[in-house]
Amino acid sequence: MYRLDELTARFGGELCGDGATRIGRVAPLDVAGNGDIAFLANPKYVSQLSNCQASAVILGPAVRDLTDLPRIVTSDPYLYFARVAALLNPPARSVPGSHPSATVLGTVAPSACVGPGVFVGEGSRIGEDVIVGAGASIGPGCHVGAGTIIHPRAVVYHDCIIGERCIIHSGAVIGADGFGFARQKDGVWVKIPQTGRVVIGSDVEVGANTTIDRGALDDTVIENGVKLDNQIQIAHNVRIGEHTAIAGCVGIAGSTHIGRRCMIGGQAGIIGHLEICDDVVVSAGTLVSKSIRKPGVYTASLPVQGHAEWVRNFAHLRHLDALSERVRSLEQLAKTNDKAKP
Amino acid sequence: MYRLDELTARFGGELCGDGATRIGRVAPLDVAGNGDIAFLANPKYVSQLSNCQASAVILGPAVRDLTDLPRIVTSDPYLYFARVAALLNPPARSVPGSHPSATVLGTVAPSACVGPGVFVGEGSRIGEDVIVGAGASIGPGCHVGAGTIIHPRAVVYHDCIIGERCIIHSGAVIGADGFGFARQKDGVWVKIPQTGRVVIGSDVEVGANTTIDRGALDDTVIENGVKLDNQIQIAHNVRIGEHTAIAGCVGIAGSTHIGRRCMIGGQAGIIGHLEICDDVVVSAGTLVSKSIRKPGVYTASLPVQGHAEWVRNFAHLRHLDALSERVRSLEQLAKTNDKAKP
Amino acid sequence: MYRLDELTARFGGELCGDGATRIGRVAPLDVAGNGDIAFLANPKYVSQLSNCQASAVILGPAVRDLTDLPRIVTSDPYLYFARVAALLNPPARSVPGSHPSATVLGTVAPSACVGPGVFVGEGSRIGEDVIVGAGASIGPGCHVGAGTIIHPRAVVYHDCIIGERCIIHSGAVIGADGFGFARQKDGVWVKIPQTGRVVIGSDVEVGANTTIDRGALDDTVIENGVKLDNQIQIAHNVRIGEHTAIAGCVGIAGSTHIGRRCMIGGQAGIIGHLEICDDVVVSAGTLVSKSIRKPGVYTASLPVQGHAEWVRNFAHLRHLDALSERVRSLEQLAKTNDKAKP
Repeated sequence: MYRLDELTARFGGELCGDGATRIGRVAPLDVAGNGDIAFLANPKYVSQLSNCQASAVILGPAVRDLTDLPRIVTSDPYLYFARVAALLNPPARSVPGSHPSATVLGTVAPSACVGPGVFVGEGSRIGEDVIVGAGASIGPGCHVGAGTIIHPRAVVYHDCIIGERCIIHSGAVIGADGFGFARQKDGVWVKIPQTGRVVIGSDVEVGANTTIDRGALDDTVIENGVKLDNQIQIAHNVRIGEHTAIAGCVGIAGSTHIGRRCMIGGQAGIIGHLEICDDVVVSAGTLVSKSIRKPGVYTASLPVQGHAEWVRNFAHLRHLDALSERVRSLEQLAKTNDKAKP
Repeated sequence: MYRLDELTARFGGELCGDGATRIGRVAPLDVAGNGDIAFLANPKYVSQLSNCQASAVILGPAVRDLTDLPRIVTSDPYLYFARVAALLNPPARSVPGSHPSATVLGTVAPSACVGPGVFVGEGSRIGEDVIVGAGASIGPGCHVGAGTIIHPRAVVYHDCIIGERCIIHSGAVIGADGFGFARQKDGVWVKIPQTGRVVIGSDVEVGANTTIDRGALDDTVIENGVKLDNQIQIAHNVRIGEHTAIAGCVGIAGSTHIGRRCMIGGQAGIIGHLEICDDVVVSAGTLVSKSIRKPGVYTASLPVQGHAEWVRNFAHLRHLDALSERVRSLEQLAKTNDKAKP
Repeated sequence: MYRLDELTARFGGELCGDGATRIGRVAPLDVAGNGDIAFLANPKYVSQLSNCQASAVILGPAVRDLTDLPRIVTSDPYLYFARVAALLNPPARSVPGSHPSATVLGTVAPSACVGPGVFVGEGSRIGEDVIVGAGASIGPGCHVGAGTIIHPRAVVYHDCIIGERCIIHSGAVIGADGFGFARQKDGVWVKIPQTGRVVIGSDVEVGANTTIDRGALDDTVIENGVKLDNQIQIAHNVRIGEHTAIAGCVGIAGSTHIGRRCMIGGQAGIIGHLEICDDVVVSAGTLVSKSIRKPGVYTASLPVQGHAEWVRNFAHLRHLDALSERVRSLEQLAKTNDKAKP
């Protein structure tokens, strides 16, 4: 339990009402009760404020007077809520040490916790306060920085580097071979050994079942603060700049470089060997097929329609060139007629 | 081996021919032999009926007389086949008990089978007849209902609920953190603790490498009878209604609610905070970017073309607005000319 | 370390310069140093040749005289590089035998290496020189051919066949149930037991977290030399022809047959029950919704645009049918006017 005035002392913001109010949980406006602190970030939910049963609320200056509840007024209620929620929900503590069923060939810091069935390969170094969940596998020659959490069944291949305070979710595979083959004339593929590594900075989160391939010759690099959602595929030699966030199911093909502070929407795809500059936003479902050199929002997707309507409209997509030609002919004709006018 | 009259006694349908015919296997029309029962559901395969070597056939009333084989006539041969196939292929029996290499901190019902290398966290309850395959990981505080099968290497994070008779395939990750962050002005992301759960009803199937994230504050909910194919991504606070079926590689973004009995085609995407009503069908590859309030089939995808043809046609997509404007000008001109006519 | 003349004796190509030059590593043109061999395959990088510090270079006949470095001239430098890289980077040797923490119920060839926590089910046969990585699970009744590598945490369900010299990456799931259900009138789905297998030929590579479902009645078949990238979903009863290569995040729906030597781009989708002939190339992001009977390149994707421009252009997609009708009317009018001319 924290008092409201403890929160404002820690995180700033203006306190309205009783600073001695105690809260122990964050909760949505419509279900919050005694001991809960709720927040209002989206104006869409402003009507929920009047009946809110929370002990306190976090909100913006424009709506500060719409409630009599004890409250914290701040310019970014969502960010403030994030900080309070983190304070109230510290990560679970784990008992240091390696479970007897783990196979540890590398070195593990004394404060680290290595779970049942974990494999740590030769020469790998597991840093202080690291948690390695049940059955995770870390190949030889890796380094896992202090405070990182590797969830159950995640896999890291040999010689990869993971920074500090990262979170690697279950099923993530880091450092598998990039998809590199040369083709013989008879169509047979000859594998190109993938001798680069994956190098991940600090404060990176990697979602469940996301895959990050090792580089072919150079490394694949994920910079500090990058956040990757679930089921993202990052191919060999990709580089992702600091604080870029990528939503679920995105695919990024080989050797593409993405700038800092980009936001890539779900199921977007970026083809190989492109440069995406800093501060680019790519909408959900968009296939990026050329480099982007100017910050901004980029989109390519179709409007969903009732199926019959879609059939009617989309038949024309195959004949856009002809349609354009017909318009040109009509324009030509109009011009000729105009000239012919008496 | 079952006799045909045993099948009709169990499942209904009209028996034609010798009820004492014995069958032990289901097989396709064109390869079925002695002891097999085949089925005809798709009229496309009707020609295979005449040479069919099966001991018996399941078919519809319209084609009942196209063969002399012993047969079961039913209005839905595919559904009938499903029931017969299930009868002939009961799930493999497993020996109750926990393998000595498993780490079980929770409680396991006497009839349940916990495989080698499995981890079951503190306070988790594994129900009667549950099978947990090799190396699966079930975090603390979970409940797995009676008769559920969790295949090897599936992962369930802490405090999640799985109903009865579910099938969770390998590599599925249930309850990883939702993708929730607040952004500071400098672009740094602050993680929002994901304190909700995943609650899965009964008779749900979850495909291989599918991910279902836990809720941010409230739960992510998968209702009874939902069927999820492989590599589906379900974000935090999504709700999926009873008996909805979703094909492979679909992504559903946060807080979207999907109704009952919907069918979502492969690689479709549904963006966040939408409402999809009951009985909606979404075609493969369609990105749904707005709520759908009327049952029906919805589509948004492009016709595939030879590459050169595509280049010719799709160049115009960037200029549709200009093309439309040109047509308007021509219409305007025609109107003016018409008025100017003597 | 190998001498250049040893390489040309092994792999052919024309030697220019000192055949006694020794190289031990492959490296990119711009970072290669003493003891490295670089290659020039893409004319885009030709300018890097003049400052290249490598001990030797692999290049094509057209650029043979642009450097004085010892070099190997060959018609396909990239393929040559692949062979040299493979020679210089042989797969890591593993110590034969099964780790004491593995649970092996099947038979393992003496030269095979079975890692910690691995499960091998009853009746499964693991061939000579096979490596099974930490925590992989191979169900009962499988066969894994000689020289195959199964990386940590990969899963193979019961009764599947994997050929020789395959590479199965971590998190891949082979043989999970296909997505097969019959629907009752009330919307309830009845599961159809998936009784087929997955049969994989030799020299196949399966990427991380890729899923290949077992057949419903017949088998799902991946022929020799097929290369699958990460996070590909292959549904039941699909057949993929020899030496076809498929990039990441592709989904292939049930019963579709793909020919030999095809190349499928990333995030492409192929719907069910189609036939794709040999030597077809499908571009990234393309949804293939009909059979393809002629070799060639096929595409369906949208050009990415700035968001505002996209909004302007794509509004018209919902009205293409109307636009086409308006052009027809104008044409009709022009024709009438023409006839009316004096």
